[in-house]
Amino acid sequence: MDAMEFFQLSTGRWRSQRTTHHLAFKRSEKGESEIQIETLSADDPKIIEICHLHEFGPSLAVGGAFVSWQGSMGWDREEENHTGSTVFALLPDTADGREGTLLRERGYAEIVPVAGHYHMDEEDGLVLTTEYETMSSIERFWFASPSLRMRTSTVKRFGGFSTATFCTEFRIADVLEAASNADVASLSNPTPEQIQKTVEPTKSFSFFGW
Amino acid sequence: MDAMEFFQLSTGRWRSQRTTHHLAFKRSEKGESEIQIETLSADDPKIIEICHLHEFGPSLAVGGAFVSWQGSMGWDREEENHTGSTVFALLPDTADGREGTLLRERGYAEIVPVAGHYHMDEEDGLVLTTEYETMSSIERFWFASPSLRMRTSTVKRFGGFSTATFCTEFRIADVLEAASNADVASLSNPTPEQIQKTVEPTKSFSFFGW
Repeated sequence: MDAMEFFQLSTGRWRSQRTTHHLAFKRSEKGESEIQIETLSADDPKIIEICHLHEFGPSLAVGGAFVSWQGSMGWDREEENHTGSTVFALLPDTADGREGTLLRERGYAEIVPVAGHYHMDEEDGLVLTTEYETMSSIERFWFASPSLRMRTSTVKRFGGFSTATFCTEFRIADVLEAASNADVASLSNPTPEQIQKTVEPTKSFSFFGW
Repeated sequence: MDAMEFFQLSTGRWRSQRTTHHLAFKRSEKGESEIQIETLSADDPKIIEICHLHEFGPSLAVGGAFVSWQGSMGWDREEENHTGSTVFALLPDTADGREGTLLRERGYAEIVPVAGHYHMDEEDGLVLTTEYETMSSIERFWFASPSLRMRTSTVKRFGGFSTATFCTEFRIADVLEAASNADVASLSNPTPEQIQKTVEPTKSFSFFGW
């Protein structure tokens, strides 16, 4: 799978359940987002524009995506708003399209355009490394199934790890049709007792025990 | 790195911060554990015993580990106890020691011994797949730094995904010495305002925005 194929598999509407571990504080924060992803072809005006913005020739891009989201996090103040959208473009370095540069309009809390380095790993996870002025991040995205995408990321600020984030993302259609969807072990309108009963056998499951 | 080297790097005391996403319920649960890991050499009586238990020749094992833990999860009832220990042995299939069978005394909520398949991926993450009678799991462990280990796992029950878990694990020494440890961006005794201020710039950081 090349990176463009990864984004083709990512198109559609997704519900994201997110947990951020704030490492210095040993606290965690949870949030939810709804995400919509559309792929863009190499000749899309948005792709051409973003290449110009980064001073790359548009012929280097194989396409990209338009992403929009609406979300909330646990520690938000009322006036905060997690609605946004962005465009990014893929510029492979290799003939197999599994490695290269990912251009984005602008990063979170940055007003300048940002570029990251991506590669597909041997498990077809997309690994993205981004360096900013005072921080850096490593993100890994992978599909547990066609309708369950997962993501981990670590952020370093001033040379120390500050956060580690984990997201589980379901296709919205699958959330709505959960009761009839074989992909998710589900119960509709579970009672607390049902949750307790279902959850108990797996709750701290790990091969190693801890 | 081979799998035995991965466990050698894992020795010592760790504090684990864990979040489990219960996928059918769209709920998350958090927990903490303290973990202690010791490696065992191939000729350790515990390794020989576990090979006999699984009916493998002990000469196939290259060593293993003894792991103990004390923890708690958010939904625990008072009488529940997350203290335990286990022994496991590594039996490589390949000359480079990066793939093979991992034997364990017994799995979580299982009274029979369990075996999983492990491989080291190209990012030196340890990927472990385990099949049980009614469930299966895929776990991936990796080091973000020598004192920060991470883990994700997904569990399928009756063919559907039931949980996705994320752990961030710090060496205990590093937690105690956090104030002087360059590896963690830290503040001692932060006020809520300091937390808010430090957390804000990174809280929903992602290259893709959502």
